[in-house]
Amino acid sequence: MSSSLPSQRPSVYADRRRRLSERLGGAPVLVVAGRSRPRNYAANTYRFRADSHFLYLVGAHLADAALLGRGGRWELFMTPKADDDALWHGETPSDAELQAALGVDAIRPLHELAATIEELGGGAAIGTLPAIGFSTRVRQAALLSRPWGLHDPADAGPAPLGEADAALAEAMIQLRMVHDAGALELLRTAATGTYDAHLAGMAATRPGITEQQVLAAIDGAMALRGMEPAYNSIVSVHGEVLHNTTYFNTLAEGDLLLCDAGAEHQGWASDVTRTWPVSGRFSATQRDLYDIVLAAQEAAIAALRPGVRYRELHLLSCRILAQGLVDVGILRGDPDSLVERGAHALFFPHGLGHLLGLDVHDMEDLGDRAGYAPGRARSEQFGLCYLRLDRDLQAGMVVTIEPGLYLVPGILADERLCGPFDRDKTLNRERLAAFADVRGIRIEDDVLCTEGDPEVLTAAIPKDSRAVEAAVASTS
Amino acid sequence: MSSSLPSQRPSVYADRRRRLSERLGGAPVLVVAGRSRPRNYAANTYRFRADSHFLYLVGAHLADAALLGRGGRWELFMTPKADDDALWHGETPSDAELQAALGVDAIRPLHELAATIEELGGGAAIGTLPAIGFSTRVRQAALLSRPWGLHDPADAGPAPLGEADAALAEAMIQLRMVHDAGALELLRTAATGTYDAHLAGMAATRPGITEQQVLAAIDGAMALRGMEPAYNSIVSVHGEVLHNTTYFNTLAEGDLLLCDAGAEHQGWASDVTRTWPVSGRFSATQRDLYDIVLAAQEAAIAALRPGVRYRELHLLSCRILAQGLVDVGILRGDPDSLVERGAHALFFPHGLGHLLGLDVHDMEDLGDRAGYAPGRARSEQFGLCYLRLDRDLQAGMVVTIEPGLYLVPGILADERLCGPFDRDKTLNRERLAAFADVRGIRIEDDVLCTEGDPEVLTAAIPKDSRAVEAAVASTS
Repeated sequence: MSSSLPSQRPSVYADRRRRLSERLGGAPVLVVAGRSRPRNYAANTYRFRADSHFLYLVGAHLADAALLGRGGRWELFMTPKADDDALWHGETPSDAELQAALGVDAIRPLHELAATIEELGGGAAIGTLPAIGFSTRVRQAALLSRPWGLHDPADAGPAPLGEADAALAEAMIQLRMVHDAGALELLRTAATGTYDAHLAGMAATRPGITEQQVLAAIDGAMALRGMEPAYNSIVSVHGEVLHNTTYFNTLAEGDLLLCDAGAEHQGWASDVTRTWPVSGRFSATQRDLYDIVLAAQEAAIAALRPGVRYRELHLLSCRILAQGLVDVGILRGDPDSLVERGAHALFFPHGLGHLLGLDVHDMEDLGDRAGYAPGRARSEQFGLCYLRLDRDLQAGMVVTIEPGLYLVPGILADERLCGPFDRDKTLNRERLAAFADVRGIRIEDDVLCTEGDPEVLTAAIPKDSRAVEAAVASTS
Repeated sequence: MSSSLPSQRPSVYADRRRRLSERLGGAPVLVVAGRSRPRNYAANTYRFRADSHFLYLVGAHLADAALLGRGGRWELFMTPKADDDALWHGETPSDAELQAALGVDAIRPLHELAATIEELGGGAAIGTLPAIGFSTRVRQAALLSRPWGLHDPADAGPAPLGEADAALAEAMIQLRMVHDAGALELLRTAATGTYDAHLAGMAATRPGITEQQVLAAIDGAMALRGMEPAYNSIVSVHGEVLHNTTYFNTLAEGDLLLCDAGAEHQGWASDVTRTWPVSGRFSATQRDLYDIVLAAQEAAIAALRPGVRYRELHLLSCRILAQGLVDVGILRGDPDSLVERGAHALFFPHGLGHLLGLDVHDMEDLGDRAGYAPGRARSEQFGLCYLRLDRDLQAGMVVTIEPGLYLVPGILADERLCGPFDRDKTLNRERLAAFADVRGIRIEDDVLCTEGDPEVLTAAIPKDSRAVEAAVASTS
């Protein structure tokens, strides 16, 4: 967000707009950037981030802007600068400079958008994103009155889309799901920021400091590159709390620290988890489970290629985790049937990963439309129901691979979940007690599917247990 | 935001609620915390910060919560925890723990709030904050349907308030304007984070790095203390751009760097500006103007005491700035009449400061109700029209004192603003040209009005030109 101009050549965005137009046969579309969101009062805003669909097609964080396309012509509607704009905001690009940098056909004042939409047949005729959760007519009224007025597009979550909206959404999914060279360049750069961040976090770690201090090192490393977190980082000695975004615990000698933190570069996300020992040395029990998670992660990555159903990678990881838990004596039985019954999910209750792109859960604004192939729906089984991705992989997709093992008190005390496995002695609680110093381990990388071997975009970040120990032992 | 419990004793908040109740004769009031704001999709939110009125009375960043008071009884309505809450979010305080820590009379489920409001006579009878810009009835419908639904309270800016709302707003202003001991404790702590931040920024400064890298040092120092920026920091070699929140410029040897950055501690803000030379040495012209700004700032602080009208401090600063500009030959004439004609505003186009508290512009959500005493309104004169505070000072108020001098191309090229002063040779453009290496200087501190000498909460941050140079010369 260093400038209001995109960092890549105009042709990157023009090419995407052309491909979108072709997919839709030139039908009219409106893609809205959104507006700054207030923090505690209207003028004190969170740092603006444009909607991801808009960023994909325009490349710049332009607040209060909307992109209208039809028949291959693309116009950007923006609030004209106020008379005193230069006084408060300094010199900003002229419309002509902006038009050249973005490669659009025209820059027009926002107040002309309403009439233009009427000329094109009114709101319902125009595919619009982001979706904001109620009828197209109401939505566009909201979009147009006092730049999208009180209605915050992102507030509503997955929306019932109109017909034109659904066609646009489907076309965007097809485009954004398979990354072009421009996207990959920025995803790779984001990964370098995440590398810096994790290395800084590892180097900062020592007993007696707080999670917040490690987070400061992580965020600081991203900030030095002009990047910011793509999501609220998890930096916790309670890795078993899956969505833990508090940072007040003090790190103790025997703790594992789970860090799920990824940098965002010009809107493009990365998403990496490493788990490291606060002391710089894994205990024997910690190393045992760590190595199981690592094996599950590496096997899933090795099996990742075009045509493979992502859900199969999830289940492959589950089987390796189950095998590992059998090997260390926590579970009893045959790994395949343990997975079928969901025993592994007591320790791995979430999905293997998700699409990655402009959003850390890419296109989750569209619900499961992007993550689940047509005709596929979420499982009802505990664990599998949290899987965010069930598509056949294609070259150019980037996905996360993030298995884990967790000792979650809320699960292990849940009779509904554990009862069957307690009764038939599948779960060896006595043996499990020996692993109390583990709490939670997750290992996550960002992986590009290619026709050949998959490319791990985040491969440089220390991962095997000895490499992690060495990075923690180093000092910042 | 380290925990969902407030850091101060329950009596701090209970006492404020009691005083509010007394001011309103026990009339019913509803104060809403707000909800997390989405960044790029519903589940990827900005870090939640509760509404400031709510924080003042409750002390904790509780999303989707509302405080209802009537007749001295205070109930907190919250979304009950989901069954799987512990799985995803870990152990959180029980209702009983929360009730004890907050000192409220009851914790109740949010879905009971609508009926309770009806029992109390319906929406219009209940003073409600924050104001969200349309009628009370619509507002409360929005507040209650799907926890304040699509309508974001903070989006709307200053609102036309209903009668009950206005009474609540006025009572909150009277309370929040004069800080109690609990507030002062947190404001002083916030100031220590700002001290760290500015020292880190000064030490990080050197030619060849970017503004973003200095910002990273500033933010990192706040993060180490678990604080975050109270507002979007300005860190710029273009100090003359008043609202500059881009950071892509590279620092050069002769530049001044203007840093306006303040830490927020548990919701309480600080707000400090320092301007320092990238090289570690002010040029002669830079030092001349720096010393004028410093003199104006120190004079305003020295004159700050109960009963003084803040606007008089602004005008006092303006006269000193005008005198200084005459002394260095940029303006010609008598300082008093220069200020009367607004000549100083060509170089100091903004106000001297504002209230400071939970908000960096405290209570700006209520428009000018807090900043301007009843019967006072904004001037129409350029410069003075931007003054945010026109009240008689009281002991316990915290205000910023932040004069500056800027060479703003947009102003100096504006015939409407400069014409009169060019024509009668008040403005010596030839002499002005010698100060081209200045661009912008601002010096800002946070000052507590007391019965005795004012207390500068941010006094420890280097300010005179030699102290600033020494801090820049040090290395981090």
